[in-house]
Amino acid sequence: MIKINENYLLLQSGYLFPEISRRVRSFIAKNPDSKIIKLGIGDVTEPLPPAIIEAMHKAVDQMAQRSSFKGYGPEQGYDFLTDAVIANDFAPRGVSLETSEVFISDGSKCDTGNFQEIFGIDNVIAVADPVYPVYVDTNVMAGRAGKFDGKGCFAGIVYMPCTPDNNFVPALPKERVDMIYLCYPNNPTGVVATKDQLKKWVDYALKNKALILFDAAYEAFISDNTIPHSIYEIEGAKQTAVEFRSFSKTAGFTGLRCAFTVVPKELKAWTKEGKAVDVNPIWNRRHCTKFNGASFISQAAAAAVYTAQGKKQVRKIIDIYMSNASLIRKTLEKLGYEVYGGVNAPYIWLKTPGKMTSWEFFDYLLEKANVVGTPGSGFGSAGEGFFRLSAFGNPVNVAEAMERFKKL
Amino acid sequence: MIKINENYLLLQSGYLFPEISRRVRSFIAKNPDSKIIKLGIGDVTEPLPPAIIEAMHKAVDQMAQRSSFKGYGPEQGYDFLTDAVIANDFAPRGVSLETSEVFISDGSKCDTGNFQEIFGIDNVIAVADPVYPVYVDTNVMAGRAGKFDGKGCFAGIVYMPCTPDNNFVPALPKERVDMIYLCYPNNPTGVVATKDQLKKWVDYALKNKALILFDAAYEAFISDNTIPHSIYEIEGAKQTAVEFRSFSKTAGFTGLRCAFTVVPKELKAWTKEGKAVDVNPIWNRRHCTKFNGASFISQAAAAAVYTAQGKKQVRKIIDIYMSNASLIRKTLEKLGYEVYGGVNAPYIWLKTPGKMTSWEFFDYLLEKANVVGTPGSGFGSAGEGFFRLSAFGNPVNVAEAMERFKKL
Repeated sequence: MIKINENYLLLQSGYLFPEISRRVRSFIAKNPDSKIIKLGIGDVTEPLPPAIIEAMHKAVDQMAQRSSFKGYGPEQGYDFLTDAVIANDFAPRGVSLETSEVFISDGSKCDTGNFQEIFGIDNVIAVADPVYPVYVDTNVMAGRAGKFDGKGCFAGIVYMPCTPDNNFVPALPKERVDMIYLCYPNNPTGVVATKDQLKKWVDYALKNKALILFDAAYEAFISDNTIPHSIYEIEGAKQTAVEFRSFSKTAGFTGLRCAFTVVPKELKAWTKEGKAVDVNPIWNRRHCTKFNGASFISQAAAAAVYTAQGKKQVRKIIDIYMSNASLIRKTLEKLGYEVYGGVNAPYIWLKTPGKMTSWEFFDYLLEKANVVGTPGSGFGSAGEGFFRLSAFGNPVNVAEAMERFKKL
Repeated sequence: MIKINENYLLLQSGYLFPEISRRVRSFIAKNPDSKIIKLGIGDVTEPLPPAIIEAMHKAVDQMAQRSSFKGYGPEQGYDFLTDAVIANDFAPRGVSLETSEVFISDGSKCDTGNFQEIFGIDNVIAVADPVYPVYVDTNVMAGRAGKFDGKGCFAGIVYMPCTPDNNFVPALPKERVDMIYLCYPNNPTGVVATKDQLKKWVDYALKNKALILFDAAYEAFISDNTIPHSIYEIEGAKQTAVEFRSFSKTAGFTGLRCAFTVVPKELKAWTKEGKAVDVNPIWNRRHCTKFNGASFISQAAAAAVYTAQGKKQVRKIIDIYMSNASLIRKTLEKLGYEVYGGVNAPYIWLKTPGKMTSWEFFDYLLEKANVVGTPGSGFGSAGEGFFRLSAFGNPVNVAEAMERFKKL
């Protein structure tokens, strides 16, 4: 008899965004003439710039000729992309990486979700609260989370509250933790961690032989020069951290699917008997066994992000989003909202007005302003009473959304 | 302290194809002037036909305009593709499916590797021997395989020998099994299963509440009209089987990455306490949490496979490969080899001459004929003494390879 993995039955009601879609659909059904502006899901809206489009057309044409046709590529990605990643994203920041330390994939959701799989079930995981739901859900599926407490937490997970009091960078945990998920620039709060703050975490992880899973999907949005883009800018981090990066938000690839994960050769994990094991070849084995490489077209597109033209054009799009962020932030501040983020990240995190819950504010905003945002409580219990607005969107729509906020 | 998933330490030496690459590289280093012909890895070689190329150019152009730009798509795939799949691959064979029963993905390697994850660790898996290594390796990673016996088998896996005596369709197992991996047309043996043979398996699974994981990645190569393309052509299969399909071999998508998995709504699994659970929503939850959709460009390309032009052009390419298969089969038969497959599948499975082991024949063929094939023993211990030749390849090269066989 085929038995289900009962960990899946512990998962809590739907993933956040399907519930948002449901409420929006239901609102539109009742108000077919309303002009909804979506600042909810963190999805890019600007079309891909010419350098990327051109690279894709070229890649498509390569697939039409036997001499240049590409079948299976290396599971870890083509060197032309891996090398461009290293030369452009890491070397200029003083981080040297080998080709075999970078694994190209089809998305950071997959990578952040899959990476836990190569570690034992008895590791204790720590997550920020609020947090990107994928870190928690994939650990629930794996059986690391324990029972749900009915209030928003799993018994086996260490939640690290991120609040205005700690500038949304959590304190070091008091209990033992083995796998620590950190995301900076942060989704959902839009804040960043300084070099000193990250150093505390790296030192803690080194001391406790813990693993940091560092999600840097939003690093391209950092405007403050003093803020690290990579965890490897912190000394010793290669011994204790993996890093997830994505072209999704950086270059508008949410529909193309390309990302990468850095797994340094120095990184170790341990057997129960205390024997050290290299993590890089184990992830490599997992990657080669369960994945068959990202689309050649998407990898060619990603490589174009690093050309002179590509860099300029991609930067222009990021500037559009960050000018949206700035407008949102300034408007809401003027209106008296308590606002965080939006300077080094495309997310604005606001305190809901009065004593509204996150979902109450969601419904209020949808009904009164026809604007869709994301309830903070969807990211964890410490997100209750907060609300996320995304700076992705057409500037005209964002400006219109701000006008509607003014009229609220 | 971060503990490794020790199941990964049970995995046996490298995945088959990296070892083949290593030996070929080493041979080329010593014989730089040799003209190697690769009939080893099952990778397509013909360029993509015009209908698919055109659809990709169009999709790329859509990404360049805000009005047609695609960000995140549905994790399950775009309806335009799912609906084309159902209308073309299933409806004409009398199989009706709902949109929500088809999950578009980036590859069958991923799907066949990931699907086991939603089931309990205590399920007993059964695999054919020889077998596509991904089924076994992903169950080793999950902890279902038990210890390695040093000879090619894991103690916790039920191996079902496929030999000339049973026409490479295994007998029903005598011990209890819960998850049965079947692949027809078969990789690596190239043989097919008849409707009666599949019916026995479906009846067995229904009776024992077992799950059949049916890999139909090669169905497009079936030439015999009486052979089922889908397990769902067998009555009752929707209650007991999932089916994996891929555009990789069918339409030359190994570099583009697009596949799909069918998970019927009727399919159940059970909790330890015997409560029935629907599998479809659980796979949906897994798919939406750990995957973010296949590339829009690849999905647009896949949809073009189902247009009138696309069908005709794709068929032409399959005919090229199957004419290769026919040439290989006939040549080897004439030369006195014992040969299987190659009629309804792009693989030819041959008995190695004399008492050569599979790897001995590999080295012999590489050295004497500069032809690369795949050692049967790489697919399991019952594959020892056999050898796989792939019919993918430029007809000129395949013909040349056959000339070299004649001279051996």
